[in-house]
Amino acid sequence: MASIFSRIVTGEIPSAKVYEDEHTLAFMDINPASRGHTLIICKEEYPGLLDVPPRLVEAVARTTQRVARAIMTTLQPDGLNIVQNNGAAAGQVVFHYHIHIVPRWKGDQVSPFSRQGKADPQELQELATMIGNNMH
Amino acid sequence: MASIFSRIVTGEIPSAKVYEDEHTLAFMDINPASRGHTLIICKEEYPGLLDVPPRLVEAVARTTQRVARAIMTTLQPDGLNIVQNNGAAAGQVVFHYHIHIVPRWKGDQVSPFSRQGKADPQELQELATMIGNNMH
Repeated sequence: MASIFSRIVTGEIPSAKVYEDEHTLAFMDINPASRGHTLIICKEEYPGLLDVPPRLVEAVARTTQRVARAIMTTLQPDGLNIVQNNGAAAGQVVFHYHIHIVPRWKGDQVSPFSRQGKADPQELQELATMIGNNMH
Repeated sequence: MASIFSRIVTGEIPSAKVYEDEHTLAFMDINPASRGHTLIICKEEYPGLLDVPPRLVEAVARTTQRVARAIMTTLQPDGLNIVQNNGAAAGQVVFHYHIHIVPRWKGDQVSPFSRQGKADPQELQELATMIGNNMH
């Protein structure tokens, strides 16, 4: 049974895509902790950090840095949390290796572990396009 | 003015070291969020993810995976949070790129953002030695 993220990779489930290359995909979290909350995944399905081949850990890390820079340019937050959870006890919900980028603003009281509910799909698509346009 | 982590790299400030190679260093957080909370740093001083050369982002990611595996073997937690904060608004305290590995146990109510106070230095050294011995 393919994970929900594998079904996003194949296009079976739609997503607001920010960036895609051979090994990685970035798209907006539909249940964001803050405006601009983006996920970076390894296209191949591995449950967590312990399972991913090191070269793909590197590929995801590189893409995360590039997307983080594009988010800074686009949304100009005051900070960013990069979070990757392994195991249900650590708050992992989808067992397909993924990294969260959570933009932060001064005094926002946001926690990367607390979600604000479903975002408007059109707003997510607009954010994805803006951030994607700032990828280098 | 060198960061506190640069002073740990040079040995000016002592630390409970887990692992060291050319570009990266892993040591126990003295103010842990949970037992086994470990930091992975880039030895060269860069403030955050946006500033680190991509090859060093990769090096830190590889070391993080190896230390995470050793923590799983050594302490057998139920999960792990990997967290990297950028900017004071995101909870960053030391402006020298570093990744947190926070072991988690079922029902522990731990947040990677809440610390439990100073740990016993001798216990930290014992943990560092145990985890370091399980590095591959």
